[in-house]
Amino acid sequence: MKSKLKIVKIGGNIIEDPQQLGAFLKDFAAIDGMKILVHGGGKSATEMANRLGLKPKMVEGRRVTDIENLDIAVMVYAGLINKNIVTKLQVNSCNAIGFTGADANLILSGKRPVKYVDYGFVGDIVNVNRKTIKLFLDNKMTPVFCAITHDKSGQLLNTNADTIASEIAIAMSDFFEVELNYIFELKGVLENIENKASVISHINTKKYEQLIDDGIISKGMLPKLHNCFRALEKGVQEVKIGDVSLIADANNLHTTLSLK
Amino acid sequence: MKSKLKIVKIGGNIIEDPQQLGAFLKDFAAIDGMKILVHGGGKSATEMANRLGLKPKMVEGRRVTDIENLDIAVMVYAGLINKNIVTKLQVNSCNAIGFTGADANLILSGKRPVKYVDYGFVGDIVNVNRKTIKLFLDNKMTPVFCAITHDKSGQLLNTNADTIASEIAIAMSDFFEVELNYIFELKGVLENIENKASVISHINTKKYEQLIDDGIISKGMLPKLHNCFRALEKGVQEVKIGDVSLIADANNLHTTLSLK
Repeated sequence: MKSKLKIVKIGGNIIEDPQQLGAFLKDFAAIDGMKILVHGGGKSATEMANRLGLKPKMVEGRRVTDIENLDIAVMVYAGLINKNIVTKLQVNSCNAIGFTGADANLILSGKRPVKYVDYGFVGDIVNVNRKTIKLFLDNKMTPVFCAITHDKSGQLLNTNADTIASEIAIAMSDFFEVELNYIFELKGVLENIENKASVISHINTKKYEQLIDDGIISKGMLPKLHNCFRALEKGVQEVKIGDVSLIADANNLHTTLSLK
Repeated sequence: MKSKLKIVKIGGNIIEDPQQLGAFLKDFAAIDGMKILVHGGGKSATEMANRLGLKPKMVEGRRVTDIENLDIAVMVYAGLINKNIVTKLQVNSCNAIGFTGADANLILSGKRPVKYVDYGFVGDIVNVNRKTIKLFLDNKMTPVFCAITHDKSGQLLNTNADTIASEIAIAMSDFFEVELNYIFELKGVLENIENKASVISHINTKKYEQLIDDGIISKGMLPKLHNCFRALEKGVQEVKIGDVSLIADANNLHTTLSLK
């Protein structure tokens, strides 16, 4: 039987609230057994860009990563946020080790091809170096990934943190029974976006398709759920979506996703 | 017989010159066998502080690291510089992996006690986690350290890169025959500071004391040589000081330091 591995992705809302982040890291450190953390950090990079007098470049409502904004993302994600999370996990007796995809070539990506929009220095994941990640886990380390990868041709690339989490989950399911947790500001996927308590407790493939048909899944939720179902189809055991309280107690209200 | 391990420390002058850095990283990647890179990056952090409108805080001619300047150091050293070095080494088939001392608790330090000057968030090294560094080396990874450590109480600390290099060299000499290389802008320790060709090819303990007595070792060189001789006394096999050409060819003009 495979050992269990828990992968947790947190977003900007937790990272930017020091108190909430501190509480979360304590709960995360207390998770029994092997675990991996993936973090975003969008707003902090935007704030730094503002302080440096750079304007976020938007094309058709989507953020474009030019070279200056890439440098800021690398500084803020891989430097400031990642290392502060690592040192705070170490306080809580969690042997954290912080990574970009460039480190030990852990996540290889390709610059997104230009079709209608040139997204700039944005990477789509090509490969996850599962054996090296397993080596860290086997040696009782807890990898902490930020949302930067590289193309192995010397270029760092900004990469969606949700996708990093699901691609790592898929890769590691070769070795482990993987549970993937997406932690964000809501308690789960909502039936009614106006009612924060209307959490759908379970979504399977059939329900997922039905929710899309009924227009219940909102714009921002679509790529997240796409990542979740891709992960389930590729071997991840279980996916959960919820707020930060889910890590302290898995019985707290949340959405569980599964194929059946 | 112990295996050989080469530790190379580079300073800001190389890091800030993309062409020189590129050439150096190619030479470094080509070093046969196990190796570790340690980098500083002082000027880049100062430039970033200027762009953010912060003034470097100086007390009695020494830089003081307040919390804002620490954040900048973490961003620039652990983020921008470290990850760009790592991805560029990966291009050259060197399996680089970038670290602060917080990662896997690799370098534990203590905040420098306040005597006459409060240096702020500056760390003095307490312990190097030699077993974990050995694990990376045994698995054909090349650690790349920036000048940030932590106190395992949740505080990152700015730490002298020369000292990081010598403390890692000392710790690793338990397992390896260590050669420590300090790469800077000169070809070695100069007999006459006005004449850049007046490199002293060999300095032993006796010569070292004599050079201090004669006032030949200049102010900036004193702590560097102190680090070198401390390393030699604590088990490091050989220490070399030279410019970037030393890595491409060990026969190039440089200063070798040894106890006898």
